[in-house]
Amino acid sequence: MPANEIGERLRVTFVGESHGRLVGAVMDGVPAGLELSEADLQPMLDLRRPSHGPHSTARAEPDRVEILTGVYRGRTTGAPILIAVPNEDVDSSYYEGPPIPRPGHADYTAWVKYGGYNDPRGGGRFSGRLTAAMVAAGAVSLKLLRLALGVEVIAYTLEIGGVRARDGLSIEELRNRYADPLRCPDPEASRLMSDAVERARRDGDSLGGIVEAIALGVPPGLGEPLVDTLDGDLAKAMFAIPAVKGIEFGAGFGASRLRGSEDNDEYRVLAWRVMKDITNTSCSEDNDEYRVREGRIVTATNNSGGILGGISNGMPIVLRVAFKPVSSIRRPQRSVRLDTMEEVELTVKGRHDVCVVPRAVPVVESMVGMVLADHALRAGRIPAVLR
Amino acid sequence: MPANEIGERLRVTFVGESHGRLVGAVMDGVPAGLELSEADLQPMLDLRRPSHGPHSTARAEPDRVEILTGVYRGRTTGAPILIAVPNEDVDSSYYEGPPIPRPGHADYTAWVKYGGYNDPRGGGRFSGRLTAAMVAAGAVSLKLLRLALGVEVIAYTLEIGGVRARDGLSIEELRNRYADPLRCPDPEASRLMSDAVERARRDGDSLGGIVEAIALGVPPGLGEPLVDTLDGDLAKAMFAIPAVKGIEFGAGFGASRLRGSEDNDEYRVLAWRVMKDITNTSCSEDNDEYRVREGRIVTATNNSGGILGGISNGMPIVLRVAFKPVSSIRRPQRSVRLDTMEEVELTVKGRHDVCVVPRAVPVVESMVGMVLADHALRAGRIPAVLR
Amino acid sequence: MPANEIGERLRVTFVGESHGRLVGAVMDGVPAGLELSEADLQPMLDLRRPSHGPHSTARAEPDRVEILTGVYRGRTTGAPILIAVPNEDVDSSYYEGPPIPRPGHADYTAWVKYGGYNDPRGGGRFSGRLTAAMVAAGAVSLKLLRLALGVEVIAYTLEIGGVRARDGLSIEELRNRYADPLRCPDPEASRLMSDAVERARRDGDSLGGIVEAIALGVPPGLGEPLVDTLDGDLAKAMFAIPAVKGIEFGAGFGASRLRGSEDNDEYRVLAWRVMKDITNTSCSEDNDEYRVREGRIVTATNNSGGILGGISNGMPIVLRVAFKPVSSIRRPQRSVRLDTMEEVELTVKGRHDVCVVPRAVPVVESMVGMVLADHALRAGRIPAVLR
Amino acid sequence: MPANEIGERLRVTFVGESHGRLVGAVMDGVPAGLELSEADLQPMLDLRRPSHGPHSTARAEPDRVEILTGVYRGRTTGAPILIAVPNEDVDSSYYEGPPIPRPGHADYTAWVKYGGYNDPRGGGRFSGRLTAAMVAAGAVSLKLLRLALGVEVIAYTLEIGGVRARDGLSIEELRNRYADPLRCPDPEASRLMSDAVERARRDGDSLGGIVEAIALGVPPGLGEPLVDTLDGDLAKAMFAIPAVKGIEFGAGFGASRLRGSEDNDEYRVLAWRVMKDITNTSCSEDNDEYRVREGRIVTATNNSGGILGGISNGMPIVLRVAFKPVSSIRRPQRSVRLDTMEEVELTVKGRHDVCVVPRAVPVVESMVGMVLADHALRAGRIPAVLR
Repeated sequence: MPANEIGERLRVTFVGESHGRLVGAVMDGVPAGLELSEADLQPMLDLRRPSHGPHSTARAEPDRVEILTGVYRGRTTGAPILIAVPNEDVDSSYYEGPPIPRPGHADYTAWVKYGGYNDPRGGGRFSGRLTAAMVAAGAVSLKLLRLALGVEVIAYTLEIGGVRARDGLSIEELRNRYADPLRCPDPEASRLMSDAVERARRDGDSLGGIVEAIALGVPPGLGEPLVDTLDGDLAKAMFAIPAVKGIEFGAGFGASRLRGSEDNDEYRVLAWRVMKDITNTSCSEDNDEYRVREGRIVTATNNSGGILGGISNGMPIVLRVAFKPVSSIRRPQRSVRLDTMEEVELTVKGRHDVCVVPRAVPVVESMVGMVLADHALRAGRIPAVLR
Repeated sequence: MPANEIGERLRVTFVGESHGRLVGAVMDGVPAGLELSEADLQPMLDLRRPSHGPHSTARAEPDRVEILTGVYRGRTTGAPILIAVPNEDVDSSYYEGPPIPRPGHADYTAWVKYGGYNDPRGGGRFSGRLTAAMVAAGAVSLKLLRLALGVEVIAYTLEIGGVRARDGLSIEELRNRYADPLRCPDPEASRLMSDAVERARRDGDSLGGIVEAIALGVPPGLGEPLVDTLDGDLAKAMFAIPAVKGIEFGAGFGASRLRGSEDNDEYRVLAWRVMKDITNTSCSEDNDEYRVREGRIVTATNNSGGILGGISNGMPIVLRVAFKPVSSIRRPQRSVRLDTMEEVELTVKGRHDVCVVPRAVPVVESMVGMVLADHALRAGRIPAVLR
Repeated sequence: MPANEIGERLRVTFVGESHGRLVGAVMDGVPAGLELSEADLQPMLDLRRPSHGPHSTARAEPDRVEILTGVYRGRTTGAPILIAVPNEDVDSSYYEGPPIPRPGHADYTAWVKYGGYNDPRGGGRFSGRLTAAMVAAGAVSLKLLRLALGVEVIAYTLEIGGVRARDGLSIEELRNRYADPLRCPDPEASRLMSDAVERARRDGDSLGGIVEAIALGVPPGLGEPLVDTLDGDLAKAMFAIPAVKGIEFGAGFGASRLRGSEDNDEYRVLAWRVMKDITNTSCSEDNDEYRVREGRIVTATNNSGGILGGISNGMPIVLRVAFKPVSSIRRPQRSVRLDTMEEVELTVKGRHDVCVVPRAVPVVESMVGMVLADHALRAGRIPAVLR
Repeated sequence: MPANEIGERLRVTFVGESHGRLVGAVMDGVPAGLELSEADLQPMLDLRRPSHGPHSTARAEPDRVEILTGVYRGRTTGAPILIAVPNEDVDSSYYEGPPIPRPGHADYTAWVKYGGYNDPRGGGRFSGRLTAAMVAAGAVSLKLLRLALGVEVIAYTLEIGGVRARDGLSIEELRNRYADPLRCPDPEASRLMSDAVERARRDGDSLGGIVEAIALGVPPGLGEPLVDTLDGDLAKAMFAIPAVKGIEFGAGFGASRLRGSEDNDEYRVLAWRVMKDITNTSCSEDNDEYRVREGRIVTATNNSGGILGGISNGMPIVLRVAFKPVSSIRRPQRSVRLDTMEEVELTVKGRHDVCVVPRAVPVVESMVGMVLADHALRAGRIPAVLR
């Protein structure tokens, strides 16, 4: 029962706590021969760090990643890779008081499950801090996918506080997502999102949003039927990210309101020409990026989000993830003191983001990367030794 | 890599094909001592059968379930339970033609993954027929949950073709869901759904919809942090059901548009009085059913859908699953003949539902039951021997 | 916790009981495209059947194997393969008495573990009858290994009742093992073994013995370091066979009494000439069968039994498995009546082998086949689709 | 495919290399609430260290163990526990030469499997150094077993170089095993073993031996039938230890030469009196230690080694593990230079034990402890939260 592990062929175990010595990941199953150093990981960890702009936490972690095992002379050896991100800027004073669960947090469920022995500091095991470990392992997975298969994973902020990026963003615009502090490639929407975040901050409140992720170049045939489906494994991986409350693929919940004749993606033979409108999402630009890999069969639309029967069909994989608003807010809320069972009023202190969605963008990319790399290895599309 | 297996402590392996000799399930990990016979399974299989009303397929399977192993003198023995549902009404003539993938189906991805060796008859391994095996295993899981923990799982049709059941349905109404042919406990909505289905049928088209599931009486503390979360495992399980394109918990995608102060569920001490509005979903009636089990801490609202940090909090678990419209439609569609790579026009023949949502209701209950039973066993809430 | 499953990439789940309706296996992970029918399995099941000679049980099972799922038009489809061997000649009258555990049997431990709910008839889940399911799954695995990799697995009776086959048996002699009723390719030893079995039978007693297995043509590089070692997985698989009490590889326990200079296998470059004495076991004939596959590096001796650091080195894999004597004997023994806790005298009735070693020979081959096929798939040496 | 992980409910992943920065283990599944600090682990690591006597390596590692995650305020939290043992005394100069595999080592198989990318320094992943991580995780497992179940695991040196400890050692003598530098509780035998080691050292050669392990107080009912048997999992765990070539339980290989009437262990009702001769091994003293736990049914002998049908019967678990002689010897040996495929003469340099058996004693205890703790958790005999 690998409670803290994800993946079958590429298995990642997450360790650490928010205010402990480190967070980290053990990656078992990375092929031997992959060039790898901290320099491959640090940039993605930096993208996850708070921007110190108005929408983020004040915890100032340098997030210096270290690869402790599994690499020799700059290449992976086939042995498990232990990656650590030390916790440095820790202030646990807040958590020394009586046990009063913060509404919307896992404080209460952790207390029940572990009989009060869980580490409560900073949310312990349930903190967003664990996403640093996810990003570290994600960076390895994404490099492996890129080198071995040419797969590219792009996530971006589609919505914050109800403000949505416009349709029809081009791949080029999506690739520039990290140039925007909110990771939204639509500058107009980004401005409105920023205003919404600022208003929430002033109110001592918080916001949620939606991240969309697109994976280009995924070969057809990844995923297993019935249980270990590609969409099922992606969905499970997304719920590993704190604050996720929903996921959909392709037309998603919207598909439930379409007729079959509208939703079905017809097949075409590809003449290696540019395809239009293939993702049926925000990316619709004419662009030869859309050329699917290997095989000449494509679909005219992509309501399926690139997955049919749990198996990739070679079209871009498209998914959207809903994040609830940050639960730690400065406004007073009612809760219960667990040791005395008294109802109390609670004002959450500590340093918290107003909206985690921008910081979640590389995390979503990372989890998508881990699942795709796992299934590519399962399908034999990535060899056990890279040469 | 258990591609066709679900669960860790209660592990279910699905076998069979649509037009083969049977579909079935092997259940490993059911505690010894559970009274069990075919009579516990058959009623739930009957609920999954087509009603032969206007919205369903014409394939007339009796779905006679058989328990072949693991039961002795009317009780489970602790050994794996093999359950079989023979296929009887099979007509494979349609599938003997050239390989032309039906848009929206897994025909193409199965063909790619298995190099053309997959069994294409009736969709083979990717057919809705496999849900008969899911329901058989689900009936066992749900009986186990009910007897050992008092858990009750209720799913129902929330939406078909954009028509949505009204808010505020009572638990009593929900419990009557199977009295309605569309499994929708709101008679008004059911009538409108039925009209929509009839219109789609006349047009040779199909519809999708949304199923909501509620689990009452789930003890707090089920689920693991980070990876084997309760929501993550439920999500993965839902994607095992054909045609699912999205899932959300509690306030779900809607939560992404709330502020923290609106979304957070405040804690209360329960005085064993009736709680109002606790599920924050379609069920909101004053009703002592809402009394959470074990523990006196509840939340005033249930935007979380009963899960925080991947762990149940004792409140009702609430989730919604989006089904795309049935992909097999009578209207002509364009596809590609895979052996010659010619683009062709395809008119799907065979017997197909116009809308699977009503038949999916017991399937969703079954998959929820399997996941909850698995996590209840993992958490030690159900013993290995029932006495 | 797959208690009844073996393998990662090729996963086999065993179902059934001795006196239930059937024993069987579900094989998940067999590549698509393998030609397969009952005719591939039946001969190996026939080899496991009692010979009705003096050393065997009187239970007369036809062991008609059926493939129920996963095969279409004579080839595997990639879906799970359900194989069933119905139980036909069942007489459970003996097992209806009070619960008195037979010494040496699993009666007592099953009763403790399952709180008395286990199926006791014929040993239930712990019966040698389950080895029919092992052989069925083994026949598939061995065919896969043979076709895809040219691997050949040969087990034979090395010892019965202390009588040991001579050293230096040739591969040709080993291949004729099934011509001998005791599966011992040394006719002299077989005669002495037969006498020993006859004496034990007359005394109402039973015998044990040792089976040696050799796998030829195994490519180097199978097995994982540290935990999922090839020897560790083979060892675990052997303990799935009833009555196994020990296993050793290559020089085995004998190696513990050698010096390093005697035990170390020196490396040689192979000039495609015949190698002598390579298995360092009973097979030592000059024979070009010994030519290892792929790669030109061999060892001059094979004390390692073909495995170093948990990974195959390309030399023949050699292992020996110790079977204790059959525990069901006609001589009176003391036991305890579990419902009253009285000490009683017990005389085991029913139909039992005097020595299972000859019947265990195809079972050992089967379990070796499953493990090697699993690791060959893990290592990417067998593709997911055979063409 | 958890290649580097052991256990289902208590899962341990081993990380690190001989000459990398550390070796370590991640333990997932340790119950919350266990008091734990480095002080619980260090003594067992010290027992594994070379004694710097004549029979051991010269590598002088302090083996300072650190617990990096999963413990808060001196107790486990339920989160994964990362334990690290830094490598400090590393000299890799020897391994910078051309790739020439040492006979008997995993150098060649690692090179084949990882395409030459494996870390060869000190044997890399295949080094005995990894056993430091095993002992660290073992110390946690053994503490858990002792506190929660009163289980005691005792291993000791039974044989070195063919010299065997006498029969009939008492539990008290066994408990003093670590007072002897060779971990052999028979002083006479220890002296002879020491002489044999000294002779081998003078000859530039090495020795192997046999470790026996006994687990007292194991409750009946641990282990699963058929595949995840207790003996099968113990066997697999033993092959994770470098140099192991065989394992047997109870009467083991000797049982294959007994008759059923000799080998069967008759049942008795226990009157809480002292039992004699119950382990049928080297420990036979009258001693109330032998009183089995829980349940009043015992066996008069213990040829089964405490396991029947893969499940513990409450009697002491007894197993023996064969270690081949250390493969690194100072005598010249023939090998092949892998980059040029020339046959060469090799004289192994570096610092190596003459006989690892004494240092393997705590390693065997550790692996036994991990398997027993895993199965005790699986059987629900240890709760998820200790109070």
